[in-house]
Amino acid sequence: MLSKARIKLINQLKQKKYREQNHMFIVEGTRNTIDFLASSFTAVEIFATENWIDENKKQLDSAVVSSVGMKDLKKISALTNPSEVCAIFNLPTKKPSPTPQIDTYSLVLDDIHDPGNLGTIIRTADWFGITTIYCSINTVDAFNPKVVQATMGSLSRVQVVYTDLKVLLTNIPEGLPVYGALLEGKPINEVNHSKKGLIIIGSEAHGISKDIIPLISDKITIPLLSSSDANKPESLNASVACAIICYALKISN
Amino acid sequence: MLSKARIKLINQLKQKKYREQNHMFIVEGTRNTIDFLASSFTAVEIFATENWIDENKKQLDSAVVSSVGMKDLKKISALTNPSEVCAIFNLPTKKPSPTPQIDTYSLVLDDIHDPGNLGTIIRTADWFGITTIYCSINTVDAFNPKVVQATMGSLSRVQVVYTDLKVLLTNIPEGLPVYGALLEGKPINEVNHSKKGLIIIGSEAHGISKDIIPLISDKITIPLLSSSDANKPESLNASVACAIICYALKISN
Repeated sequence: MLSKARIKLINQLKQKKYREQNHMFIVEGTRNTIDFLASSFTAVEIFATENWIDENKKQLDSAVVSSVGMKDLKKISALTNPSEVCAIFNLPTKKPSPTPQIDTYSLVLDDIHDPGNLGTIIRTADWFGITTIYCSINTVDAFNPKVVQATMGSLSRVQVVYTDLKVLLTNIPEGLPVYGALLEGKPINEVNHSKKGLIIIGSEAHGISKDIIPLISDKITIPLLSSSDANKPESLNASVACAIICYALKISN
Repeated sequence: MLSKARIKLINQLKQKKYREQNHMFIVEGTRNTIDFLASSFTAVEIFATENWIDENKKQLDSAVVSSVGMKDLKKISALTNPSEVCAIFNLPTKKPSPTPQIDTYSLVLDDIHDPGNLGTIIRTADWFGITTIYCSINTVDAFNPKVVQATMGSLSRVQVVYTDLKVLLTNIPEGLPVYGALLEGKPINEVNHSKKGLIIIGSEAHGISKDIIPLISDKITIPLLSSSDANKPESLNASVACAIICYALKISN
């Protein structure tokens, strides 16, 4: 059974303030938990049903595991349909380097607010072998339970760095392209890319900030094919635009 | 001011049963409302603030418009942050043809359950000029308020048809390719496509159904580039996979 203190702590961890205070965050679901256990993150405690513990014994290693019922899991879950496992992990201790890698692509997120979008972008980055994501200070926290959930384990493999984007982009190594998706950019399928660079994705409501636009070296766009006679779509969802750009730059061109 | 009867009706329209009974659905937000007004859909009534009505007068045409305060809009909105406009439209009356077009791409969704995913897919289809989406009977309803919201107006331009996918796919015109994303498919960037065909996207949890797989003529896959030494991502988000496939087949190849 879960103690009242544990229930209180886990529910507090749904808020950023308490995650930072306790240096912990919550992970739910089998895929997520197993991936974090296999990573360099440290598990504090895992709460799971007997059945789940039985099925995943091999992956649990030396982690502290407590057997709890679904009734208890419902009390701590951030999900509508709680999974059979909920775990507490420590936030990463190592401060990542704020200097971009020069031989590969990294993502730069300018105020992504929707947790589902950020989680999906982290998952997509992982798929395409992009291991670093720079986020503006106002981007939603990557350790928000809804973000963690949407990453489907990928947050255990992708480094997310919160930083002042203007400072980041004015101090990049010479010759590193800075791609930014704008309506007036060059069609992404015609871009000769260099296998390296920063890819900026703008916010859901406002796109790329005005003070960031002058720091873009390569303006790109995803061609609009809508043949509607009435209105046309104005934009793509941020995580969809990001995925298409990652695919185009990493694979198709 | 909103009458109690109107508040009750609008809140009922959040459920599919009442949408079908009343033959109506709700549209929220400026972009969505303006796009539906410009389409062949019929507006029943528009509820908006004085300010919104003033700003959008030109688009309102002959629609029945009621001026209401934000307090009333909060009572009827399905959003956490209600917009200044909420409208009731009639569901489409024309039954769309269940036979796929032979000269273009259409999407086939096999049990997409997340409203945000369906909305994002409809928005992406509209961007790439795909005007018909076939959905399995168990796919979430396209007129669910969360789906409508995520389409950002695109539902007014894309036709969504609910049908038995097995029947649809066993009765397609000869020579029409049926693309399906599977892990063992041909890399999407190497596919020579034919500018036409059905593109099947599987469900979030289970991918494409077992009884649908034999009906695929062209198995495709999005190459996995993750270089992780530990676990690797198992899949992409359904709306992201759909977007990359649409881009690859419509633009890049």
